[in-house]
Amino acid sequence: MKRLAILGCTGSIGRQALDVARAFRDRFSVVALGAGRNLGLLSSQIEEFQPELVSCQAGDRSGLPVGDYRMVPLDEMAVHPDVDLVLVATSGKAGLAPTLAAIRAGKQLALANKEVLVMAGELVMTAARRCGVTVLPVDSEHSAIWQCLQGDDRRNVARLILTASGGPFFRYSPYRMAEITPEQALDHPTWRMGEKVTVDSATLMNKGLEVIEARWLFDVPLEHIEVLVHPGSIVHSMVEFADGAVKAQLSLPDMRLPIQYALSYPERLHSPQLPRIDWSELAALEFDTPDFSRFPCLGLARQAASKGGTYPAVLCAADEVAVGLFLSHRIGFLDIPRLVEETLGQHQSADNPSLEEILAADCWAREHIENRRAYKV
Amino acid sequence: MKRLAILGCTGSIGRQALDVARAFRDRFSVVALGAGRNLGLLSSQIEEFQPELVSCQAGDRSGLPVGDYRMVPLDEMAVHPDVDLVLVATSGKAGLAPTLAAIRAGKQLALANKEVLVMAGELVMTAARRCGVTVLPVDSEHSAIWQCLQGDDRRNVARLILTASGGPFFRYSPYRMAEITPEQALDHPTWRMGEKVTVDSATLMNKGLEVIEARWLFDVPLEHIEVLVHPGSIVHSMVEFADGAVKAQLSLPDMRLPIQYALSYPERLHSPQLPRIDWSELAALEFDTPDFSRFPCLGLARQAASKGGTYPAVLCAADEVAVGLFLSHRIGFLDIPRLVEETLGQHQSADNPSLEEILAADCWAREHIENRRAYKV
Repeated sequence: MKRLAILGCTGSIGRQALDVARAFRDRFSVVALGAGRNLGLLSSQIEEFQPELVSCQAGDRSGLPVGDYRMVPLDEMAVHPDVDLVLVATSGKAGLAPTLAAIRAGKQLALANKEVLVMAGELVMTAARRCGVTVLPVDSEHSAIWQCLQGDDRRNVARLILTASGGPFFRYSPYRMAEITPEQALDHPTWRMGEKVTVDSATLMNKGLEVIEARWLFDVPLEHIEVLVHPGSIVHSMVEFADGAVKAQLSLPDMRLPIQYALSYPERLHSPQLPRIDWSELAALEFDTPDFSRFPCLGLARQAASKGGTYPAVLCAADEVAVGLFLSHRIGFLDIPRLVEETLGQHQSADNPSLEEILAADCWAREHIENRRAYKV
Repeated sequence: MKRLAILGCTGSIGRQALDVARAFRDRFSVVALGAGRNLGLLSSQIEEFQPELVSCQAGDRSGLPVGDYRMVPLDEMAVHPDVDLVLVATSGKAGLAPTLAAIRAGKQLALANKEVLVMAGELVMTAARRCGVTVLPVDSEHSAIWQCLQGDDRRNVARLILTASGGPFFRYSPYRMAEITPEQALDHPTWRMGEKVTVDSATLMNKGLEVIEARWLFDVPLEHIEVLVHPGSIVHSMVEFADGAVKAQLSLPDMRLPIQYALSYPERLHSPQLPRIDWSELAALEFDTPDFSRFPCLGLARQAASKGGTYPAVLCAADEVAVGLFLSHRIGFLDIPRLVEETLGQHQSADNPSLEEILAADCWAREHIENRRAYKV
């Protein structure tokens, strides 16, 4: 029985992780649930899974059910002796401290919060190596790469090929892109996800962040990581080896598969609830190369990663603020990369930053955009 | 330094294996060359690779160069103490005895001769298990499956999906198929191969034989092995696992890759001579389901495999004779499956056949067609 702590249990990944736990009650017990402010959903999860530990960010917790659980902060949950595997499915920088805590406690760590590695990849992976912890990826792309790497020597990797659906606007002209509304951006063609990541998919920033994540997870130089547009979201990513052989991992787009693989690794569980590819229905897998000029976020992410220091943290923070402004109709779709680029351009990075410097860069970026907007919007 | 015996060195696979050995002279030495009757090519290979052991089927060997090598039969070559790995790239039943000999001598065995497993899969794999020998596949499809299985538990395999180019006539109507000439059948759209296997590709018998081969190589029941048409020959085959995840192996069609992988396994060698997929060129990977009514050989192979005994040996022999008759313009393209089906229908199989019974069934099938043709052609 693997004992799970689900950090971010009311989000899209957290809910699907609980679907997996529900389907395999003989294998997983949910001992800890960490939520944000969705007390209604957290309450029903507590009643169903009867965890020992609960965490939430809401001030008023009077709505939570009475029961035999203890309220603890996320960090404490991540290191608790009754927990075997910590799934970090929080969003933004919230996952950073619990991830480092879980690693230092030697827990199995499944990571769905991409900002953790984008902001602090070097810190996190150094800690993981030191503590002998394998960081298990949950993103479908990184899970695909990880599956393709099984049984092959990492030194034989020639390049990683991250696939991108291209989002809903892949064929839009720049003129049409300027007019994109939040409602259009939230209507993703293949994946159902949270709002922030759905907009990031539409700008391709999501893919840029995944390139940075892949660099840290698999210890592959940025220049050996490529992005390929694949609108069907069936091929989740690929690895090219030294001899020219390519391995790909495919499935219908359903996040429960990579979540389940991370939770059950190194086993694979027979899962009737997960959909199978019907090859008689699937006529073709299509590919295209991304257009960096229409999707500047992809290039911005690469630049931030290649400059290193606190630039990737600023990239994350600026993007998060910009997406929020876009979703509340205060800036246009094309203002997202503009705001990110301008913020990166103004940033003074620290070398080999500590966790405190990374978090300070995050604050700086948020304040910078706030101040900038106070002058001119 | 891995010391190689190349059985079938003047055939298509043998020549490409020598290309690989030539590219990696620091890793492979060719100690034994076994040819059929192509003395001209064998002579130049002897001069280039300076083997210790040579075998050929030609009666008059006066054309061979003088040198410091010994003429031996194929079986002796396969068990010689100076040989580490035996590549069986002969065709038809010629590979059977040397394969069993190599296994019993505990050699590494790379198998390109598909009739060996089709005719005597149970015998060969039982011997391999008993002697602790892994049979390394060389066919691109089986190499793909083998690569996809690396690092995953065999018990998690849900199905094997063998891809087929569909050959040059995949879209032909039955009427047009009746008119197909040997010249048309030898013009394969994606692969350059020997004549027999090229015609087998056009009838899909080749894929039928590969299904049987896959059954033995990977110990997967026939009903979990499917065939999918993929005209581009980029995806060489796939494995679906218990959780619904599919792994695929891709590369441009070049037999040197699976040959090299079998020779270098478990390593992968960086090989500038092997072509890389250019994703900016490759717009789509297309798939289709095979039509068993227009390509009856696929169904005949499955039936022979499922009946077992000496039926698969009869399938191989009847197909070899029929393809020969077709290539010499004595029967039509659609007569190939007719002749195979009629021969299988007349056969009385032995249960759990010995090697002798398998070879006797092969002879029976050849004589049966000969006699039948004496009455009515």
